[in-house]
Amino acid sequence: MIDTPSKTDIEEGRAFAPKFDADGLVTCVATDAKSGDVLMVAHMNAEALQKTIATGEAWYFSRSRKKLWRKGESSGHGQHVVEMRVDCDQDSVWIKVEQQSAGACHTGRRSCFYRAVPLGKAGAVTLEFRDAEKVFDPNAVYGKK
Amino acid sequence: MIDTPSKTDIEEGRAFAPKFDADGLVTCVATDAKSGDVLMVAHMNAEALQKTIATGEAWYFSRSRKKLWRKGESSGHGQHVVEMRVDCDQDSVWIKVEQQSAGACHTGRRSCFYRAVPLGKAGAVTLEFRDAEKVFDPNAVYGKK
Repeated sequence: MIDTPSKTDIEEGRAFAPKFDADGLVTCVATDAKSGDVLMVAHMNAEALQKTIATGEAWYFSRSRKKLWRKGESSGHGQHVVEMRVDCDQDSVWIKVEQQSAGACHTGRRSCFYRAVPLGKAGAVTLEFRDAEKVFDPNAVYGKK
Repeated sequence: MIDTPSKTDIEEGRAFAPKFDADGLVTCVATDAKSGDVLMVAHMNAEALQKTIATGEAWYFSRSRKKLWRKGESSGHGQHVVEMRVDCDQDSVWIKVEQQSAGACHTGRRSCFYRAVPLGKAGAVTLEFRDAEKVFDPNAVYGKK
């Protein structure tokens, strides 16, 4: 029995021992299984992790709403998980997903990362929209706010 | 002058207004610019972000060592940033990098995500090593600990 896994156990072992932060969360990166693009960065608590593993559908924990949610439960845009990986110190997971329907971002885009930060410049940074076309109408999907 | 940017400013604007957490950090996902694989998930404080933007080389803030570091400063395995993106609510950045030399992970692997979490199973989870070959010897690079 390993009560407190060692650094070697955590990094080189086969036991899944997620390292939750003070809020009980791990970071989750979701990438598009086909394109490899990062779709979103979100968080999972123990229950979201367990449900994602058991069902193969992405569940998250919303820090703002303090609530477990299945991706797509209000938008219909769920994520089927093709593969899940955990990192060396087990505080982050990476899921490769098939994004159901159009987009992953609540703003209506395919990915949450639709603006580039120009490099090699000092001073104020002006973002550049990239791959930013809306693939669904958020007002129609979530209701007007 | 916008003192407190609105949700619309943050999500639809061109002003870079990173939303740092209580520890002054944003999450950074680094992917391999060629393969699209996630190499690592780390954190940046304002200074690490500024240095990464100015130099096009990846700088991070280590939460465990409480210290700014340039990726590669001890290993020689730096990351040249090809593109940086910011997400909708500006609390995460995604960098596409050319990983200098062999690998991004301190364990000697190309990526920190060298173990898969099998899906569709209930109960205890046994990790499966995947793409886990060591591409450098961490003892030789970092010194034996």
